[in-house]
Amino acid sequence: MGEFELLARLRERLPAAPPHVHVGIGDDAAITVPPGATATSVDALIEGVHFRREYAGLGQIGHKALAVALSDLAAMAAEPGEAYVVLHVPADLSEDGCIELLDGIAELAASTGTTLAGGDITRAPGLAVAITVVGHGEEPRSFVTRAGARAGEALVVTGELGGAAAGLLVLERPELGAGIPAELVEQLRGRQLEPQPRLAAGRALASTGASAMIDISDGLGGDARHLAAESGVGLRIDSEALPLAPGVAEIAAAAGLDFLQLAAGGGEDYELLATLPVQQLGAVESTANKAGTALTWIGEAVRGEGVEIRRPDGGLLEPAGFDQLG
Amino acid sequence: MGEFELLARLRERLPAAPPHVHVGIGDDAAITVPPGATATSVDALIEGVHFRREYAGLGQIGHKALAVALSDLAAMAAEPGEAYVVLHVPADLSEDGCIELLDGIAELAASTGTTLAGGDITRAPGLAVAITVVGHGEEPRSFVTRAGARAGEALVVTGELGGAAAGLLVLERPELGAGIPAELVEQLRGRQLEPQPRLAAGRALASTGASAMIDISDGLGGDARHLAAESGVGLRIDSEALPLAPGVAEIAAAAGLDFLQLAAGGGEDYELLATLPVQQLGAVESTANKAGTALTWIGEAVRGEGVEIRRPDGGLLEPAGFDQLG
Repeated sequence: MGEFELLARLRERLPAAPPHVHVGIGDDAAITVPPGATATSVDALIEGVHFRREYAGLGQIGHKALAVALSDLAAMAAEPGEAYVVLHVPADLSEDGCIELLDGIAELAASTGTTLAGGDITRAPGLAVAITVVGHGEEPRSFVTRAGARAGEALVVTGELGGAAAGLLVLERPELGAGIPAELVEQLRGRQLEPQPRLAAGRALASTGASAMIDISDGLGGDARHLAAESGVGLRIDSEALPLAPGVAEIAAAAGLDFLQLAAGGGEDYELLATLPVQQLGAVESTANKAGTALTWIGEAVRGEGVEIRRPDGGLLEPAGFDQLG
Repeated sequence: MGEFELLARLRERLPAAPPHVHVGIGDDAAITVPPGATATSVDALIEGVHFRREYAGLGQIGHKALAVALSDLAAMAAEPGEAYVVLHVPADLSEDGCIELLDGIAELAASTGTTLAGGDITRAPGLAVAITVVGHGEEPRSFVTRAGARAGEALVVTGELGGAAAGLLVLERPELGAGIPAELVEQLRGRQLEPQPRLAAGRALASTGASAMIDISDGLGGDARHLAAESGVGLRIDSEALPLAPGVAEIAAAAGLDFLQLAAGGGEDYELLATLPVQQLGAVESTANKAGTALTWIGEAVRGEGVEIRRPDGGLLEPAGFDQLG
């Protein structure tokens, strides 16, 4: 298999590039004219670290690689623009396998308005996908960073928590799902294998006054710490308010784990965590609902530093494991 | 080692970002305001495929990863802008090792005016570095693609050929260098381990009328074929005109190889191959020399298709191996 043949097959499968992408795949570099300010992020998924082919289909691996990258754009409230893909092709991945993986990327790209504009396909000892995404906004202030939270503001989270961690548990130990409906198990697996970037919700939050925003990739506790540190505030979270994904409590119980650890420390939910003025809560909830995403008020920003997640018994939850390399 | 500690160490070592980079490393995405049109490219270097730690220092690996990416911007005549780094960290690479590699990137970034604006550092089974670079130009037409060559134009190449391939030979088989001065062997190793992106030469070529341009990563023959195909012309190259790097003929002879195969098929020289109107040859040569790069007239664009490299005996050279995945 040659890289050029693979690229030719890939190019045939992609839609025409939009007008601001003057040159896409196939030259030394892609040429674009960004309409204003750009937000750029890159994420890598590596076999054995971030996924296993035993339970993730190739299309799902491609989907997740782009979803994870786009989730960072969602957290900036950026409009998705272009994506640049690095694909490490091991000896046991066929050309058809490459196409299946790239199709997973291309489908999510199409449904989110992202243009695949370039990349590098190279043989490698192991499978890995890294995607750089470029998002657009009118000006730098159109984007929401991690740094704008103020004491007294409300802390909200989109969607549901713990689903991706519970999904990973049932993928690794299918017997844990025996006590809940198969449909629910399937949903949890989907949360792990095919996360959906909250692009519309991110823009809804920005348009209704979000002052700081981050996506939950490392776990609520860890990402809340980043937001608190960059904003120079403390965050107080009420664990009883956390919106648990259906089935998380049951899977946690079957695994002998604290379900709050899954919800607050499990990671990979790719929901958005944001602060905003309390008086905006009504407006933002209605806008987010229109964007198809639930929104839950889970805490507040306070003077000080650090993150406290308070348990029902008044003790503090210590989300573990979110500060390690990976 | 935590990713955040490593990022903190890295951020301390980087110069302040220029004004058009509003947010650099440390948020969900970097925020920039591109001044006009952008050229974006990504390249990956993978241990065991593109380098070996037995002969490449960590700083050299970092340097080469960025150089290879910037070489694509050179071939577009773009001004280097931002770089986004994915670093795969295997178990046997220490935090100090990571810093040494990232320093190699940072040094070339500083000397070329490139801002390290983001990235992803993740553990992985093997060492790999992928870098996305964004370059700038006033408008899309400021960039030189592969597609503009016209029949009758001159074909020129910067610098010298075959050095990187000869350098790889002496790195793998040091005894091949026994017959030439140690200084020359060292130069050839440098061509392989620390290529220099021809950024100034690329802009010089563009400013004096280059109609199409490509960097020589796969080998002169292979990259000439890309340029010919994208432009819809044929290319005729005189092998006697090829500017051989000093020592290439001797290393090839010691290895029992045809030196023209090294020069035309060896790859990784990261010189620029360009077409331009014949009447511009004088002007472009003088501009390139001012930019510190020699320029050699090696052939011409003709009606038709494909690439012919004519040997001194009138036969055709068939550069091998440039069309494989990798």
